[in-house]
Amino acid sequence: MATDIRTSSLKSPIDVAEYLFTRLHQIGVRSVHGVPGDYNLVALDYIDKVGLRWVGNVNELNAGYAADGYARVKGMGAIVTTFGVGELSAINAMAGAFSEHVPVVHIVGTPSTISQRDGMLLHHTLGNGNFNVFTDMNKEISVVTAKLNDPYEVAAQIDHALQQCWIQSRPVYLTLPTDIVQKKIEGERLKTPIDLAFPTNDLDKEDYVVDVVLKYLLAAKNPVILVDACAIRHKVTEEVHNLIEKTHLPVFVTPMGKGAVNETHPNYGGVYAGDGSQPDVKERVEASDLILTIGAIKSDFNTAGFSYHTSQLNTIDFHSTHIVVRYSQYPGVHMRGVLRKVIEKVDLSKLSAIPGPKMSNKVKENEDKSDIITQAWFWPRVGEFLKENDVVITETGTSNFGIWETKFPKGTTAISQVLWGSIGYSVGACQGAALATRDAGEKRRTVLFVGDGSFQLTAQELSTIIRLGLKPIIFVICNDGFTIERFIHGMDAAYNDIQPWSFKDLVPVFGAKEGEYKTFQIKTKAQVHDLFEDKKFNAADYLQFVEMYIPKVDAPRALKLTAEASARTNAKE
Amino acid sequence: MATDIRTSSLKSPIDVAEYLFTRLHQIGVRSVHGVPGDYNLVALDYIDKVGLRWVGNVNELNAGYAADGYARVKGMGAIVTTFGVGELSAINAMAGAFSEHVPVVHIVGTPSTISQRDGMLLHHTLGNGNFNVFTDMNKEISVVTAKLNDPYEVAAQIDHALQQCWIQSRPVYLTLPTDIVQKKIEGERLKTPIDLAFPTNDLDKEDYVVDVVLKYLLAAKNPVILVDACAIRHKVTEEVHNLIEKTHLPVFVTPMGKGAVNETHPNYGGVYAGDGSQPDVKERVEASDLILTIGAIKSDFNTAGFSYHTSQLNTIDFHSTHIVVRYSQYPGVHMRGVLRKVIEKVDLSKLSAIPGPKMSNKVKENEDKSDIITQAWFWPRVGEFLKENDVVITETGTSNFGIWETKFPKGTTAISQVLWGSIGYSVGACQGAALATRDAGEKRRTVLFVGDGSFQLTAQELSTIIRLGLKPIIFVICNDGFTIERFIHGMDAAYNDIQPWSFKDLVPVFGAKEGEYKTFQIKTKAQVHDLFEDKKFNAADYLQFVEMYIPKVDAPRALKLTAEASARTNAKE
Repeated sequence: MATDIRTSSLKSPIDVAEYLFTRLHQIGVRSVHGVPGDYNLVALDYIDKVGLRWVGNVNELNAGYAADGYARVKGMGAIVTTFGVGELSAINAMAGAFSEHVPVVHIVGTPSTISQRDGMLLHHTLGNGNFNVFTDMNKEISVVTAKLNDPYEVAAQIDHALQQCWIQSRPVYLTLPTDIVQKKIEGERLKTPIDLAFPTNDLDKEDYVVDVVLKYLLAAKNPVILVDACAIRHKVTEEVHNLIEKTHLPVFVTPMGKGAVNETHPNYGGVYAGDGSQPDVKERVEASDLILTIGAIKSDFNTAGFSYHTSQLNTIDFHSTHIVVRYSQYPGVHMRGVLRKVIEKVDLSKLSAIPGPKMSNKVKENEDKSDIITQAWFWPRVGEFLKENDVVITETGTSNFGIWETKFPKGTTAISQVLWGSIGYSVGACQGAALATRDAGEKRRTVLFVGDGSFQLTAQELSTIIRLGLKPIIFVICNDGFTIERFIHGMDAAYNDIQPWSFKDLVPVFGAKEGEYKTFQIKTKAQVHDLFEDKKFNAADYLQFVEMYIPKVDAPRALKLTAEASARTNAKE
Repeated sequence: MATDIRTSSLKSPIDVAEYLFTRLHQIGVRSVHGVPGDYNLVALDYIDKVGLRWVGNVNELNAGYAADGYARVKGMGAIVTTFGVGELSAINAMAGAFSEHVPVVHIVGTPSTISQRDGMLLHHTLGNGNFNVFTDMNKEISVVTAKLNDPYEVAAQIDHALQQCWIQSRPVYLTLPTDIVQKKIEGERLKTPIDLAFPTNDLDKEDYVVDVVLKYLLAAKNPVILVDACAIRHKVTEEVHNLIEKTHLPVFVTPMGKGAVNETHPNYGGVYAGDGSQPDVKERVEASDLILTIGAIKSDFNTAGFSYHTSQLNTIDFHSTHIVVRYSQYPGVHMRGVLRKVIEKVDLSKLSAIPGPKMSNKVKENEDKSDIITQAWFWPRVGEFLKENDVVITETGTSNFGIWETKFPKGTTAISQVLWGSIGYSVGACQGAALATRDAGEKRRTVLFVGDGSFQLTAQELSTIIRLGLKPIIFVICNDGFTIERFIHGMDAAYNDIQPWSFKDLVPVFGAKEGEYKTFQIKTKAQVHDLFEDKKFNAADYLQFVEMYIPKVDAPRALKLTAEASARTNAKE
């Protein structure tokens, strides 16, 4: 049961919910995802009030995916759910945000502190008086879990949670009981923004690591840079860019690192993922005597099944929590400070910077005689369609692997879930990302590539896209089911089939109005070409939905390799 | 890492997955719900082999709801998901099954024991080498969690889990690593069925309780029986029926107890839910000097907001784990044995059995001048439409409260989630229930009532219904959003609105073929009447989907009362 703060003791009394949402606004959140439920309704009244938009997703899992996509574009995402039923529906999305280092604030409206104290037999409970179960479930997938039960503590709890969400770039979980929503707390505190500065390293330690890094860097004959997911998530892409500009070292990205660097930069060499790389990339990276990996997540799908042929003796790993030089570990040192000093101190006269291969979109090289759209042909062709500053979302499955063959224009943001790999994610993420660009006042296109099987899981988020008036370009790759699974096991198994849908007809069914959308059905390379050359299509002035047919057993090269490796790992005795 | 059993030591070697699915088949499961994922694919190969059907749902949450609906009709349900992403998507459904006492077996395909031992950085993990997080999340919502890691233990683990699932009527959770699926174990064990006999009570204790119950029962002047959810879930409806037949006591049901007794029986008096009851029911129950409650779950939504005006001094509670006579508790005594002996021993010459009120479907009484369909008019009218042995599914929202006013024909099975109350549940449950009746070889109609807001959360399960060729009658009540929320808070708030869909057009979009379905749009009482009188509609020979329009701010009487009570509880300081 909550103790009241005497309102007369407050200079600028403010309701708890208003405080919370104001803090989100201050950090840059402009839209809050989620689904209403009776334990969060009163809190939702404050969203408009502080200048935020309530999205109102179709379900909580989709809302979680959308908040994740939003965060990847706008810096932070937020979702409000209701106790038990709502929060558990979103938990897969939150685990994904934890796994993939995405800062999402999860606010759960719960029964009142009094109801909890009394163990009342309320709806949305397990019926056993235990109100802690769902919070406990979130502890291992949130960097902060806090119960906002005491008005004296609430402001500090909120500020700490949002700070850690931002700094650690991972989800936080807050429960807001119905009787706390309107409790008065001190509003003066809002005049001081939450300190979002990244903690600096211990200087002596940092200098030591920088010296070690420089020693190996200057001794190396053909060093390269390999940029991975956490360079993006832990916000060191500026440092990466400066490092490239200063050193002129060849730079590669991993699949999860796509979008971290300007792929039109002369030093950009392509995607490295072990055996999944293009031959010239593989050769160059694996022949390097020093690989500077920045923000690496060396997971199976990010390395084409652990197929790196590199040695730790030739590797320096820069992480947000530690640095590893060969086998020497330096815990507690953040890559940001180290990278900055390396850039500052590196003696270019002693650095050996040998150019790498040139990446291009190999469209002609991949063309066969048939007019059937193939994975090999399509993805490089996408590279010629994309424009500067596009946001590109790819689903786990053929799209996530196909995009390795797409050279991005400058400023492209890439969104995918290569580590967590929850199918259906991309549809929600597309909603969140498209909204985030609009909230940021940016005129960027959002382009989604999703397979038919994955699309079905979260299809109704298309309804939210329509409801919000967003204008993404959506490609549903129709290839009769779960192609990635087929290549792992059960090529012809019925369990990898799906129910055939008239995908594009969903757009009007979900309420899109004549003139506010356009749908397409394409089956040939020529049709792809025509669409990609079409000025109206390129302008993306309304929602565009493309049903695109690719043969069932066609898959990107890298997917086939990775799937084979996965099948081996699964069976290993 | 798993130890192999020497195959030559086995009389009838059988693969672990075949053992598991054979056990499910023996208990009566005929269809397995779920979604494929690479950690469960090899296991799925065994489903056909042992004569089970793989459903292949559109997503895991829906699969969980469907397995729950299946279990409520067929006695047990099963779902297979994949590690992390799949199991977490289903966790809300599993928590619901725990909350509502529904026996569902959740089988999760996980990475191999070797990958787990080595802490490999695999897809679907949190990236931190911790493979226990998701199992830990399931511990508080499963009566057994077991990791099938050791071939020497697997058979005993499976048998124990399925036994407890059945006996405790709640979910169990099993992880099946990829390298265990095909390990050989002893198949001879399958010749002995799992012992599903309910444990008997300690005889002395049971006799003591029976004497106490009889003492109060015979002393009472106007005793009544009140049947609740756990009478159904813990399988004592036969005992309840015998009790009524023998004693001729008036019998009432709670909202969650609907379907437990034959509502056409002369002793049936109606639905008791405190202030939410019809006046004559309220009067009769609350005037009783002894209420025998059987399997009570006195939750807020089951009691119209804790509005019973009854005294514990006039109550005997029969539960699956204990009996409470007035304030005397008898833990460790199951109601089954006690009820049987009470029936056997009760001296009818000393029992006072005063008839209760008569429940009827009050259609004419609820009719107003307007032709608009109202909640007050519709639900009694449904009672005249329903046929013997129908399966009736109602969604949390207006349907769950409206159905209080519907008197069921004999043999009706009612499915709803009054305690857990996860919106969207009913669409998945409808798929599972319709499949269960078909699997049981029964010709029963499955009739779903779901609101437009709730339907949107899980709409795509309609696709599975079509894919399986099921023939439910689906009513989507179109009333512009979350009416139940409106009555709790935010009557006109935008967050309670939804995107308007062309609901009925989803049927062909999801692949239903001309001639294999029929859709309807109805807006007047006359249209409802015509539909309910239509012979073809009644025959339910194909999927029928009805878009039915009811005004936005109309709600069943009981919902309004309960919503007001919820708002008060939420705000209480």
